[in-house]
Amino acid sequence: MPAKPKDLLKNIEFPEDLRKLDKSQIEAVCQDLRDFLIDNAAEHGGHFAASLGVVELSVALHYVFNTPEDKIVWDVGHQAYGHKILTGRREQFHTNRQYKGISPFPKPSESEYDAFAVGHSSTSISAALGMAVASRLQQQPQKQHIAVIGDGSMTGGIAFEGLNNAGAVDSNVLVILNDNNMAIDPNVGALKDYLTDITSSSTYNKVRSDVWELLGKFSKFGDSAREIASRVEKMLIGVISKESNFFESLNFRYFGPIDGHDVDHLVHVLEDLKKIPGPKILHLLTSKGKGFSHAEKDPLTWHAPSGKFDRETGEIQKADVSSPKPPKYQDVFGHTLVEMAKADSRVVGITPAMPSGSSMKFLFDEMPDRAFDVGIAEQHAVTFSAGMAAQGLVPFCNIYSTFMQRAFDQVVHDVALQDWHVIFCLDRGGLVGADGPTHHGAYDIAFMRSIPNMIVSAPRNEVELRNLMQTAIEAKKPFSIRYPRGAGVTIDWKQPLQVLEVGKGVKLADGQDIAILTLGTPGNFATEALGIVAAEGITPAHYDLRFAKPLDGALLDEVFTNFSKVLIVEDGCLQGGVGSAVLEYMADHEYAAKVKRLGIPDRFVTHGTQPELWRECEYDTLAIVNALKELA
Amino acid sequence: MPAKPKDLLKNIEFPEDLRKLDKSQIEAVCQDLRDFLIDNAAEHGGHFAASLGVVELSVALHYVFNTPEDKIVWDVGHQAYGHKILTGRREQFHTNRQYKGISPFPKPSESEYDAFAVGHSSTSISAALGMAVASRLQQQPQKQHIAVIGDGSMTGGIAFEGLNNAGAVDSNVLVILNDNNMAIDPNVGALKDYLTDITSSSTYNKVRSDVWELLGKFSKFGDSAREIASRVEKMLIGVISKESNFFESLNFRYFGPIDGHDVDHLVHVLEDLKKIPGPKILHLLTSKGKGFSHAEKDPLTWHAPSGKFDRETGEIQKADVSSPKPPKYQDVFGHTLVEMAKADSRVVGITPAMPSGSSMKFLFDEMPDRAFDVGIAEQHAVTFSAGMAAQGLVPFCNIYSTFMQRAFDQVVHDVALQDWHVIFCLDRGGLVGADGPTHHGAYDIAFMRSIPNMIVSAPRNEVELRNLMQTAIEAKKPFSIRYPRGAGVTIDWKQPLQVLEVGKGVKLADGQDIAILTLGTPGNFATEALGIVAAEGITPAHYDLRFAKPLDGALLDEVFTNFSKVLIVEDGCLQGGVGSAVLEYMADHEYAAKVKRLGIPDRFVTHGTQPELWRECEYDTLAIVNALKELA
Repeated sequence: MPAKPKDLLKNIEFPEDLRKLDKSQIEAVCQDLRDFLIDNAAEHGGHFAASLGVVELSVALHYVFNTPEDKIVWDVGHQAYGHKILTGRREQFHTNRQYKGISPFPKPSESEYDAFAVGHSSTSISAALGMAVASRLQQQPQKQHIAVIGDGSMTGGIAFEGLNNAGAVDSNVLVILNDNNMAIDPNVGALKDYLTDITSSSTYNKVRSDVWELLGKFSKFGDSAREIASRVEKMLIGVISKESNFFESLNFRYFGPIDGHDVDHLVHVLEDLKKIPGPKILHLLTSKGKGFSHAEKDPLTWHAPSGKFDRETGEIQKADVSSPKPPKYQDVFGHTLVEMAKADSRVVGITPAMPSGSSMKFLFDEMPDRAFDVGIAEQHAVTFSAGMAAQGLVPFCNIYSTFMQRAFDQVVHDVALQDWHVIFCLDRGGLVGADGPTHHGAYDIAFMRSIPNMIVSAPRNEVELRNLMQTAIEAKKPFSIRYPRGAGVTIDWKQPLQVLEVGKGVKLADGQDIAILTLGTPGNFATEALGIVAAEGITPAHYDLRFAKPLDGALLDEVFTNFSKVLIVEDGCLQGGVGSAVLEYMADHEYAAKVKRLGIPDRFVTHGTQPELWRECEYDTLAIVNALKELA
Repeated sequence: MPAKPKDLLKNIEFPEDLRKLDKSQIEAVCQDLRDFLIDNAAEHGGHFAASLGVVELSVALHYVFNTPEDKIVWDVGHQAYGHKILTGRREQFHTNRQYKGISPFPKPSESEYDAFAVGHSSTSISAALGMAVASRLQQQPQKQHIAVIGDGSMTGGIAFEGLNNAGAVDSNVLVILNDNNMAIDPNVGALKDYLTDITSSSTYNKVRSDVWELLGKFSKFGDSAREIASRVEKMLIGVISKESNFFESLNFRYFGPIDGHDVDHLVHVLEDLKKIPGPKILHLLTSKGKGFSHAEKDPLTWHAPSGKFDRETGEIQKADVSSPKPPKYQDVFGHTLVEMAKADSRVVGITPAMPSGSSMKFLFDEMPDRAFDVGIAEQHAVTFSAGMAAQGLVPFCNIYSTFMQRAFDQVVHDVALQDWHVIFCLDRGGLVGADGPTHHGAYDIAFMRSIPNMIVSAPRNEVELRNLMQTAIEAKKPFSIRYPRGAGVTIDWKQPLQVLEVGKGVKLADGQDIAILTLGTPGNFATEALGIVAAEGITPAHYDLRFAKPLDGALLDEVFTNFSKVLIVEDGCLQGGVGSAVLEYMADHEYAAKVKRLGIPDRFVTHGTQPELWRECEYDTLAIVNALKELA
């Protein structure tokens, strides 16, 4: 059921409608938009806290700037719900994050108001700068290019690369730093401390004006004091105005910090900034979840509430807990890491800004000096881990599969080449569901297995995840363990730890005619499928490879010696994935067989629930059943 | 012939020998080391200019710090020649960059003094921080961890990620900023302007002390002036000391800038810094090529001189130019880009700090407003290009294959997912020669072909490179063109441009029994091999795939319909490469054949000449001949 827009919002289909309103009405529009967002989230869930924090900014930007001619790039894009509602998508907004519904992130193919697709963080400055330089070359000096970036995203290396380049290029780019002191978890790092510091009353702007005022007082001591004071002032201008600010040292003109929820003031400031050419940064202070008291108090819980909620009481609908359920894979990782850190003083945990999402929070709670949140900085997370390994620690570096794409070079150059004992735990491997194409973990198996020295594995269930973690500690090699988003399949998961043999798979079912090879959790689809096709007299064998690298040669020899039809199922891209690895083994060992591969096809996959997407990509239980019938 | 060390250097085998010397002798050691470096380079070539710039730093670090217990991480590692000579490798130093000789970069498996392997830039702060945190956890507070990083490397995003994290972690890390205003090409970006600015006399340190002095003068105006002055001073401390410096805003204690060639002073400063806990940065000013006047005057030519040279006259031995030679691929790229930019106003060029290495310098010379050097910032280079493409420009983003590893996520998320028309030109694809394992371009075909929407191609010669560039302009899709380091095969390369059909290969030779499939320049090895085996009556057919994606289905149908033995040769990793793509096609279309694949094996390949390495990896002409004989 769509939420109902209030009076003013009802009449705003596109920003041109907004721009017809009088300035005195803007604050009321913000209230309408905020209500609509909360109503919608109460009914449909989603990442709404970030968007609540930028209600005023969303309205002010579309009011002041000439969108879609002027370009707004929303970093990460979690924060763009208000933007979507103001740009022609209010009526469809209730389909956000649903299969075939509107995208949870800005998406150029969905709307001309979405200048750039964003899902991973820290890209907005680079993209907006590219657009700004293009406009300059195309002789469109009036065009504005705006990157809206959170303080958490600002710690990503590419954001700095973009700032460094923008500050040296003559370009019309406005960076709006949305400073709410939160990424998903609280922001960490020196830059965050710095932002807090320039925001607090004791420094920068305040001191600057105080000093100026005091220097003025010297005038009463007569001409020579006045002259000295004037020389002091002159030199201070040199130091303070040019170098006293992180951003100004990168040649940005810095404005702020200002209250990001005072929309009238914000409109006024943006109108002024529009007239100032060159790179500039506006520092906004906002509250994540603003206007919804429950979210303001507990932004972590409300980053993306886990279900519908009562907007008055803040009570979130809980899933049915009447019977015990298997845990999330991330929690199995988190609890097991604590267990291992207690047993082995070399074990440490590293996360780039995902202590909650990865459940490394358990280690942070129990052994805070052994857990490291390095901020949104995947590249650094990997090389930092390598440095630790070089000194004999055993780092578990936990990065979502999709974000590990950002550290591919560091895995190759800083870990594998030097054969350091770093353990990569890749959460959210495979299709992740509602977050969609920016967040699917499609490529990790393909790229990890192309890297020498790397051990590449995927557990079929929670017990195996734990055992692979233990195996990785013993292996003394670069080791990758990938597992999916969401819950597992084992209620009684906390079994004693076992060390597995590296490069050994396991036969799960004997059978005839057809062999199924699976890697990771699709093994469970195959088990289900076997139960179904048995009724029709189809009885394939089933092998779990467990390792994409090294492959289990003995297992494959057995398969290709005994079976002429092989079905391979994986939760990753078919191009170069584990199926491809098996084909290489076949070619190298001169085996022949009819091989059918199921997995993520060669296209970007949309958002929806995981079962919807597994279905669409045809590697769920039903797809395996169909493939088996076809092969039989 | 090894260069001969002078008196003092002769007796220094390891840093412990150096540390026995009196401080008064250190300057002479520097002179000896510099002479040795120049003598060696005159005879053997190599990247010596960077190392000349850090002669004093190398000596001072090993004199003051307790290496190898204390850890020095040399960013990029070009600059580590002096370090290598002082740490047990003087006698082997003449084998630097040679096959089976010592590595041109620090390499832990070569020496315990090489704390971390480095070849790609900007990793040193992260690695040193990891080590520092490990030492803290291991209760070794006395241990020192030093990252030596150039101002060029400082623009890489991971360097910033490392700074941001280090500034927030209690760790004993010293960052030495070796500021010579050069990467390989002159450094660009706002940070560079900033460093120049704080180095010039008009600002920061100078102003700070001047202001303090002036405030002192107020004392003569009596008590109340003194009191005001004291309040001014107090506030200034708040602003200036805490926030007036880029690095201090990231919570580093900043020291400098100081003259990096005054070794006595340097020793003194390092001894002081050793006693200061926490993150700190020392800003050194150095000259690349210091002490060799030719290199000081022309650092670009002398970054890595192209041959032996006369140390007095600076004359570099030229290669034989009596007969015309095929050009380097990079020059074909560079000249063709200019041609295309002149013909099409949408065409622009983007390079991350490689205008010379990529030969984009020709575009910089002819159309400076259409060429963009974004600094060492591959991630930004890609997303910046995507932003330009979003506005209708046609960017040629040229990145060495090995460095493109650093922008994998940006290629997926910021280009391919949005289907922007960005053209990637991947120079140095395949085995690159003397730079060795950190720099081989082994993975690009495998990772590029796993990405949806991407067109993946490799030219067999210069004419094809030009035609693929033209084809990419017409294709309106993300498009990757990879070509090798070094010279091509065609003297008369400047042929009229042709648009090729995307996803179409070409038959180069009819034949019997065996089909050879090649991608890119290994096609020329195959052509040679065909000439050789013909004498023995072996006459394979030869097909050039030209595209790794999309594959030429009609060509492959022809091959697998007519041949039961297929040899695939590629200049990239066998895991997931184009051979693997062909195997996928076979499986999907139920073809059977005996397939042998030649390419880069599943291990890190050492340094040497390209022919030495092609031989070692067994995909050169001889290897193809042998494989054909075996298959026949």
